[in-house]
Amino acid sequence: MKIAVDAMGGDHAPDVVVEGAVNAAEETGHHVLLVGRTDAVRPLLDRRMPRSGKIEIVEASDVIEMDEQPAQAVRRKPGASMVICAELVRDDVASGMFSAGNTGACMAVCLLRWGRIRGIDRPALAIPLPNLRGYGVLLDAGANVDVPAACFAQFAVMGSVYAHEVLGIQEPKVGLVNIGEEEGKGNEQARAAFQLLRAAPVNFVGNVEGPDLFMARVDVAVCDGFTGNVLLKAGEGLAELMMTLIRAELKQSFWLRLPSVALRPAFARVKGRLDYAEQGGAPLLGVNGVCIIGHGRSHSRAVANAIRTVGEAVRHGIVERIRDRVAD
Amino acid sequence: MKIAVDAMGGDHAPDVVVEGAVNAAEETGHHVLLVGRTDAVRPLLDRRMPRSGKIEIVEASDVIEMDEQPAQAVRRKPGASMVICAELVRDDVASGMFSAGNTGACMAVCLLRWGRIRGIDRPALAIPLPNLRGYGVLLDAGANVDVPAACFAQFAVMGSVYAHEVLGIQEPKVGLVNIGEEEGKGNEQARAAFQLLRAAPVNFVGNVEGPDLFMARVDVAVCDGFTGNVLLKAGEGLAELMMTLIRAELKQSFWLRLPSVALRPAFARVKGRLDYAEQGGAPLLGVNGVCIIGHGRSHSRAVANAIRTVGEAVRHGIVERIRDRVAD
Repeated sequence: MKIAVDAMGGDHAPDVVVEGAVNAAEETGHHVLLVGRTDAVRPLLDRRMPRSGKIEIVEASDVIEMDEQPAQAVRRKPGASMVICAELVRDDVASGMFSAGNTGACMAVCLLRWGRIRGIDRPALAIPLPNLRGYGVLLDAGANVDVPAACFAQFAVMGSVYAHEVLGIQEPKVGLVNIGEEEGKGNEQARAAFQLLRAAPVNFVGNVEGPDLFMARVDVAVCDGFTGNVLLKAGEGLAELMMTLIRAELKQSFWLRLPSVALRPAFARVKGRLDYAEQGGAPLLGVNGVCIIGHGRSHSRAVANAIRTVGEAVRHGIVERIRDRVAD
Repeated sequence: MKIAVDAMGGDHAPDVVVEGAVNAAEETGHHVLLVGRTDAVRPLLDRRMPRSGKIEIVEASDVIEMDEQPAQAVRRKPGASMVICAELVRDDVASGMFSAGNTGACMAVCLLRWGRIRGIDRPALAIPLPNLRGYGVLLDAGANVDVPAACFAQFAVMGSVYAHEVLGIQEPKVGLVNIGEEEGKGNEQARAAFQLLRAAPVNFVGNVEGPDLFMARVDVAVCDGFTGNVLLKAGEGLAELMMTLIRAELKQSFWLRLPSVALRPAFARVKGRLDYAEQGGAPLLGVNGVCIIGHGRSHSRAVANAIRTVGEAVRHGIVERIRDRVAD
């Protein structure tokens, strides 16, 4: 399988992307097309994996920067690495793509080059959300800030397909992010979405709040992109605060210095579990192609995991499965 | 100062409320009016503080349950403990009130019995949000699920007054909860609110996301009640998950058992810092009276802290300060 990788996307590109791609190619056997400036990518690649058939460079002269306005950037830079990736997939040269670049631009590129799946009004970014059992999926995590309630049912179908096919969860439980468990709770949009979700062909279990998500009462949580993004960042912020407070406590007492050294690997494991960036990125669901979007701060392990996820999503025919479910 | 306390409100009422009230009366010197069923409260009180002048019982024959529909409950139960508390404040018998009962009902009672401060369209529930330096305040945390953008500026003024007067923060920094730092980010409501906040008489520093809140980049965070409640519960959920994962890690290895015992007090302190329920409850701002609402699961320490907070809010004339600022 050939996978197109945006070599120039992300805070630490192209170094960590090349490193992650090399590791992914070795571990998975996938053929990686590193898309970017040959002069920047070639030396990094040669240092790591000289003359291997598993990785090749596809020249892309331009780069969309992290802080560019998405729609404008895509229009102005048709030769950007991210755009070339999407075209390689559209032209069946690659089976799927990965980028850790500008998230908004990446969603725009996929939408423009591939189009939406028939029956899906808005594509959604699905984020792996850590929970007590492993991972669930939260969508939309930021692709659409203002959505009609009708989209919630589509999000639920797409999230269920992804959770089943890629995360391997049987009959994934779907919850609506809300501010109380009872029916009738929430704002106007949430109340309308509740009714639509109840009628949707998914395993809808009702309203859910933060603790339900993180303690794994549901596998798929749906909400609009504004709410999803706020929820996600709140989790990030609180995890950062807790780690800082715990570290400060451990430094305060002489008697805790030794145990704190012994605890370091345990804390690192907890941190790793909570860091969704490490889990292989977030699929953009609802477009006619497989695209996994990585966090801008992705390091090589996250890149390698994400490339593996692209392979899994392609292997499970995630686009076709969503197409079938929506057609039903 | 006399403070009315809803003896029947909360998951562990009346026991923990009586205990908290007794401790608060002893520590602060405030005179507490325990409002509730005399036959339920009297034996608990006699056991703890027999024949003291600092606490008296005010009979209220009815109780609004935690799961009752707020508006209906208030209409049907004019003799409920929560309603009597608000009337004691309205009639100047008490200076302020505390309840850990049904939050929606408590807000409805205060609104109905006291009315809104002139110039405030919607009262807001302000939650103390733990951060790196101590506490900030997040509002609205759930009083209004659908609000016009104009309310955001009012929330900012009320939050700033509270942060300054009660939390003692000079020129509190105000942020708008959003999904990106740049102006122009967010949904329609957030974009409109941004412009109004810029024109408001507060120290507005721009959009903020989870990490900004928890790492103390701002002191006052404003949003609609739906978003605020989702953010709060996400934090609660993630804290629960982290504590569970850390505990599981510590149990896994024999070598970590001993240090984990040594660490217990440190973890307890971190947990206490993050538990906003312990911090004395959430003020309902924008009504003509002081009301602190406690989490349903409040224990006696939280109740005592909340009663102390009522005293602080009254002492700093929080209602008058908000009235003055809005009149300007």
